[in-house]
Amino acid sequence: MAKDNRQLREDLNRVMEQQEMFHGAPDTLYEPVRYIMGLGGKRLRPVLALMACQLFKGDTDKALLPALGLEVFHNFTLLHDDVMDRADMRRGKPTVNVKWNSNVAILSGDVMFAMACRLICQAPDERKGAVLEAFNDLAVGVCEGQQYDMDFETQEKVSMAEYMEMIRLKTAVLIAGALKVGALLAGASEEDLQPLYEYGTKIGLAFQLQDDLLDLYGDEAKFGKKLGSDIRENKKTYLYIKALDLLEEVDAIALEHEFSTPTLPFGDIAKIKKVKALYEKVKVKDHCEKAVSNLFAEAGEALDRLSASPAVDPQALAALRAFGSELLGREV
Amino acid sequence: MAKDNRQLREDLNRVMEQQEMFHGAPDTLYEPVRYIMGLGGKRLRPVLALMACQLFKGDTDKALLPALGLEVFHNFTLLHDDVMDRADMRRGKPTVNVKWNSNVAILSGDVMFAMACRLICQAPDERKGAVLEAFNDLAVGVCEGQQYDMDFETQEKVSMAEYMEMIRLKTAVLIAGALKVGALLAGASEEDLQPLYEYGTKIGLAFQLQDDLLDLYGDEAKFGKKLGSDIRENKKTYLYIKALDLLEEVDAIALEHEFSTPTLPFGDIAKIKKVKALYEKVKVKDHCEKAVSNLFAEAGEALDRLSASPAVDPQALAALRAFGSELLGREV
Repeated sequence: MAKDNRQLREDLNRVMEQQEMFHGAPDTLYEPVRYIMGLGGKRLRPVLALMACQLFKGDTDKALLPALGLEVFHNFTLLHDDVMDRADMRRGKPTVNVKWNSNVAILSGDVMFAMACRLICQAPDERKGAVLEAFNDLAVGVCEGQQYDMDFETQEKVSMAEYMEMIRLKTAVLIAGALKVGALLAGASEEDLQPLYEYGTKIGLAFQLQDDLLDLYGDEAKFGKKLGSDIRENKKTYLYIKALDLLEEVDAIALEHEFSTPTLPFGDIAKIKKVKALYEKVKVKDHCEKAVSNLFAEAGEALDRLSASPAVDPQALAALRAFGSELLGREV
Repeated sequence: MAKDNRQLREDLNRVMEQQEMFHGAPDTLYEPVRYIMGLGGKRLRPVLALMACQLFKGDTDKALLPALGLEVFHNFTLLHDDVMDRADMRRGKPTVNVKWNSNVAILSGDVMFAMACRLICQAPDERKGAVLEAFNDLAVGVCEGQQYDMDFETQEKVSMAEYMEMIRLKTAVLIAGALKVGALLAGASEEDLQPLYEYGTKIGLAFQLQDDLLDLYGDEAKFGKKLGSDIRENKKTYLYIKALDLLEEVDAIALEHEFSTPTLPFGDIAKIKKVKALYEKVKVKDHCEKAVSNLFAEAGEALDRLSASPAVDPQALAALRAFGSELLGREV
């Protein structure tokens, strides 16, 4: 009998609490680790790994530690991203770089990377090589994505293709990689891995575009940080790139001008209002929602292809499909 | 016929140049990787790994990629340490955080950690588990050591035992771990690993104490950075801790006072002179040199124990012994 996501999350939290490695010395190194891991979050990546394991009729108990490794890795990237972005809030709480300082966030992040490797290495011997390869690939990809993201801050023009490749690396590679790790742990074939990986990539891209939308149009309390931060920080998101593409020249110049200078203290409200008005002129929100829909549909098609495989458990496939829908706030 | 260190270094540099992973995109991520790897250095850790491989009659060609992984890992720690220490020079050249910026050093460091994992994973399947375990252990240890090092900056009293444990983790664990990785790649037994690991630990500790000495008493040109940086940065090294221990109360208070406030701009020459005079009162240099000698002797004894093992190649053992001596600038 397959476990539902709540059970999987409980299993994950249980093994996490049992891990002595979260309680090493010095405390100054491991307290920030427990802090970030304790901020909760959806445990999206390890749950996806475990769901993929169930999809191929694997034993999730044997996949728990590598799955936890994916969550630890993800949280390591959050610590370092928050240093690089000078972010002060994460999941509604102060970031590690603010609660402690940047050095703490760097080094606790580093040890989390090492801990993630340790956990991934708990994969059974016969699958260790393949699982590690998938993990190393996603780790390198995430770094490359973050670098493109930082490069785009100073790069004058960013095309939509460049943007989509950046978010593929920064976000989707880890989602798709988590599914791949889980499937490998259950012994999935190369042939079945391909559509699953594609599903993860599409869902990951959709998830990031959704995030771009929520940053401006979301519910502040739910989102856990102030709305409009991407505009405040001159981040070239889907919304910005699409708007630049669609706006008349005079408006495009005005938009570029807004993003070309740092936001003044107390100047953010006026700036966000101005940019939002430009976005609305060309209905960028609708375009972005449409892009999310398309990606969601493509993700569904990838799953459809999987349903023909005899290795796949139909109930687990339905659960994965439902999870993707829920993630994107969509009806199945 | 065993290879000498020059040949091993050449082999390492050759496989490094062949690695496509050093030439990935974006260039902004990988250029700093090539820069730090290209600054040279002694390739101490991978050479030790390869020497340990030869010690147990292993094929160094098959150990080259994991050995390179150790060098990449070591250079990752340099990038992050230089950010955390705000260092501006490394091997006589600007650090990555100065030549580029801190964010670049953080992220290029992260990708180097991932690259190191990839390279370590090139260990043959039958040894992969053990090699990865040794690697993960050393990675966690190095982070813990760096954290203790940072903690000591604000910790009022640091005992000699605490200091030795810090440098064991920060420096010796990687030296000893490199030897272990190399020996594991050659299929060394658990029994033979123990004295080899001890040798690495003692040599690593001696190496760090030597570094403490060189920071103040070394040759500036050879050392690649300004002398007295530990005093300038109020670093509680062996010299400081030993001096505090040995000095009369009034002098100890004066020494503590010097280390309790940040060094003023242009105030470093006077401060270094003052502290050096206090050190000389109790012959701290001699004490430190004696400690290096003792560790060196203990390292030699560990090797002596190894010489009884039939798995060991006597010529390679002699080479390892000579290398340790050379490293510490000592006669065999």
